[in-house]
Amino acid sequence: MIKAFAGQHLLSVQELSLEAVETVFSVADRMVPFAERRMVTRVLEGAILGNMFFEPSTRTRVSFGCAFNLLGGEVRETIGMESSSLAKGESLEDTARVLSGYSDVIVMRHPEEGAVDRFAQASRVPVLNGGDGAREHPTQALLDLYTIRRERAALGLSLEGLRIALMGDLRYGRAVHSLVQLLNLYPAIEFHLISPPELALPPVYEEALRSRGHRVFRHDTLAPGLAAADIVYVTRTQEERFPSPEEAARYRGLFRLNQAVYTEHCAPQTVIMHPLPRDSRAGAQELDSDLDAHPALAIFRQADNGVVIRMALFALCLDVVGDVEKDLKPVRWYTGGRRP
Amino acid sequence: MIKAFAGQHLLSVQELSLEAVETVFSVADRMVPFAERRMVTRVLEGAILGNMFFEPSTRTRVSFGCAFNLLGGEVRETIGMESSSLAKGESLEDTARVLSGYSDVIVMRHPEEGAVDRFAQASRVPVLNGGDGAREHPTQALLDLYTIRRERAALGLSLEGLRIALMGDLRYGRAVHSLVQLLNLYPAIEFHLISPPELALPPVYEEALRSRGHRVFRHDTLAPGLAAADIVYVTRTQEERFPSPEEAARYRGLFRLNQAVYTEHCAPQTVIMHPLPRDSRAGAQELDSDLDAHPALAIFRQADNGVVIRMALFALCLDVVGDVEKDLKPVRWYTGGRRP
Amino acid sequence: MIKAFAGQHLLSVQELSLEAVETVFSVADRMVPFAERRMVTRVLEGAILGNMFFEPSTRTRVSFGCAFNLLGGEVRETIGMESSSLAKGESLEDTARVLSGYSDVIVMRHPEEGAVDRFAQASRVPVLNGGDGAREHPTQALLDLYTIRRERAALGLSLEGLRIALMGDLRYGRAVHSLVQLLNLYPAIEFHLISPPELALPPVYEEALRSRGHRVFRHDTLAPGLAAADIVYVTRTQEERFPSPEEAARYRGLFRLNQAVYTEHCAPQTVIMHPLPRDSRAGAQELDSDLDAHPALAIFRQADNGVVIRMALFALCLDVVGDVEKDLKPVRWYTGGRRP
Repeated sequence: MIKAFAGQHLLSVQELSLEAVETVFSVADRMVPFAERRMVTRVLEGAILGNMFFEPSTRTRVSFGCAFNLLGGEVRETIGMESSSLAKGESLEDTARVLSGYSDVIVMRHPEEGAVDRFAQASRVPVLNGGDGAREHPTQALLDLYTIRRERAALGLSLEGLRIALMGDLRYGRAVHSLVQLLNLYPAIEFHLISPPELALPPVYEEALRSRGHRVFRHDTLAPGLAAADIVYVTRTQEERFPSPEEAARYRGLFRLNQAVYTEHCAPQTVIMHPLPRDSRAGAQELDSDLDAHPALAIFRQADNGVVIRMALFALCLDVVGDVEKDLKPVRWYTGGRRP
Repeated sequence: MIKAFAGQHLLSVQELSLEAVETVFSVADRMVPFAERRMVTRVLEGAILGNMFFEPSTRTRVSFGCAFNLLGGEVRETIGMESSSLAKGESLEDTARVLSGYSDVIVMRHPEEGAVDRFAQASRVPVLNGGDGAREHPTQALLDLYTIRRERAALGLSLEGLRIALMGDLRYGRAVHSLVQLLNLYPAIEFHLISPPELALPPVYEEALRSRGHRVFRHDTLAPGLAAADIVYVTRTQEERFPSPEEAARYRGLFRLNQAVYTEHCAPQTVIMHPLPRDSRAGAQELDSDLDAHPALAIFRQADNGVVIRMALFALCLDVVGDVEKDLKPVRWYTGGRRP
Repeated sequence: MIKAFAGQHLLSVQELSLEAVETVFSVADRMVPFAERRMVTRVLEGAILGNMFFEPSTRTRVSFGCAFNLLGGEVRETIGMESSSLAKGESLEDTARVLSGYSDVIVMRHPEEGAVDRFAQASRVPVLNGGDGAREHPTQALLDLYTIRRERAALGLSLEGLRIALMGDLRYGRAVHSLVQLLNLYPAIEFHLISPPELALPPVYEEALRSRGHRVFRHDTLAPGLAAADIVYVTRTQEERFPSPEEAARYRGLFRLNQAVYTEHCAPQTVIMHPLPRDSRAGAQELDSDLDAHPALAIFRQADNGVVIRMALFALCLDVVGDVEKDLKPVRWYTGGRRP
């Protein structure tokens, strides 16, 4: 079954079956000792990642690069549209054919929807979508779902019977759209969609959930949704998209999660997630920093999980899962700050 | 003889003798198993390349970096004129002295002609010219000639008796100027120079070819030049440099190579080359994508050859040719898409 | 005692005791064989440096990266404020929490004073200050002092009894401010402060020197200060900060060190230092290139020393000093140009 990933692209969450997602997660579990710096593997020593970010991104770019380094490989990188070749009229297909001659796998982020697909079709090596415009960011969805599973497992629970509140701007956020598609592969989940009506989850996603038998509840205030959830997935409320500032002002107080709101409305141990970055400027603060020390705040564990998910995807598409644990070396350097 | 390269700069094709070129090519042949991911060498483990691109370039920069990684070395990089040191009035010589203290070899691209030479004179480590303004780009010329040899060899032929058509803007293209200088080292080549008269090859290059006994023919239409050639080297016609748009319009149709033109005028197996990037915008298309599946289209093999040529140059100037094949490791990861 | 560095940040020279500085220097001495490419160590194989330069810098950034590579580690890098996360309102603390999940140690440069401190407080891994605005650049001060010690040692002398002239803009130069704080840890040094009165060393630093019993002399002309010094530390005179161009013109001739001035005023073997970059444009030239071949010109040895100092700091904060010399490999490539 793992062989099915060898040489394959990952362009969209829509390509992923339940079985495929579970494979990624089981491989990700095996990557934890490396990401936590307990052991060193060199399975990809000599391999090269082309980390091609035609749109700037620090977090996702560095996370992919680290994941490849942790498997022993090297990273060659492009940041932004410095590429004068594209400016000189080179087609995306030509760029793909040339760059895929230099590396063993390519991660690509591009500001245009569909650009990563076109690039992948011409590439001679596997391509992982690092985000194409507002369309897809499949590794974010995978790390979100992986985080949900680990947080549940830490409480002795599986995904079955999960009650998740998705809160904020559910209309435009691609992270939410991709996550609900992955959750829809699993049985019997209860969704609490907390948003102003203007920013509700697009009907196509909600209908897909209902048609698979999930229970879906809509809320336009915080309290009932929070109270019913095991996990709250907070997103940035993009107030600039509201029809008017007055309209936005109506919901402003309702869509902030902070210590007081959490204590009043959430059950103990309710897990808090956020795809990050969160907006910490006064007037935004959809997830207040006064919760930073709370043990149920999973947002930095969530970011950390990006590394093991990306390691798993590299190991799968380069077909080295069976060799990762061979020839291990111990970590000899200080790692005191890394282990929770 | 290989010792003659140790510690040497490569700044210009004019430094290269026939013997030196042949040495580079024979070393490049030995690099193919690594570039094709059949074996891993770590001969340069611990060495550092300073990949200093003071002018942006994705393709050449990544190609040099990959070549060094494939020999086991690490790459430190600079992209663009971010260097505030130069802005603060630091001389190029000071920059060279400092940066050469950090690395074992430096690749430098710079927008000003002659800048790489000045940099090299002050550097304590070997410097490879990655392109200095419109003047020199010697690794491009070497990979072009290497491609010609491999494409000829695949047909059972040597360089002797080669008939090559150079087509497009022969006046300003530095790739063409460097390539004809290298070809001039070999005996008995027939050149077909296809260009509008305004964009003819500068007389100095043409006379050098004639004085060495080569046969040179000029054409201002496509058909006769294509018909007489074993290899067609297409370049972008820089129409913006024509005296007038009307003048440019006269040649526009004549200087496009596509499937129909190829079928009508070229002999079967005529090899098609292009230094890339090609201009794929409507109105340009000097080399049409309808030839992309043609087995004689060598342009992506040509780009791939950049890696082995650059590996060879690193191995020569760092004097590790004899050690490259020691302590080889097998490639354990998926490489299905890389082998033709 | 070395254990005291494990897991620690380095944010300011003010944190450093005499004992700590001497520890860094003794570890730096052990790094010389690696920096001079006599041996290869792989002690940090598998470790990742997050080289986060939120303000561009070629020299310092590449020096840190090379130092980490020379210990066998990998480098992931950010250059400039490309980070859209910060633009989207992410706090520096969130950025630190996320990025410190990706790497084993972080070097950070930031244009705002105090930003590196805030970053470090939230980071889960050690942070080395790569320069925060005009405030601190502690690794520069350490490499400067290390250079002074090595140059003295080459003449059979210790720091004791050192007479140092600091020349140029002593008011705004952070390199000078940090260096005098480190020198203040040592006994019995004689300081000759050569500057126009308007650019004198701020009183707080001068008083600190006097209170520890050092002898301090001020000069507003070059000759007496140069004559009394064993080492001259030249800095760029920032003429644009003078009250008027006429005022600046008064000192212009006095604050240039060149071959003629050196021969006339300096004792033989007086060591010349400069934090670099020096301004080589006509009208500036505080340190003339006609001294470039002089054996007492230490400025490029000084830049080279940045590598061993940074290697020492990495080895200390990651607690691998005892393992660096294990499993050494010989250098097999050409290094002829690197050894003086």
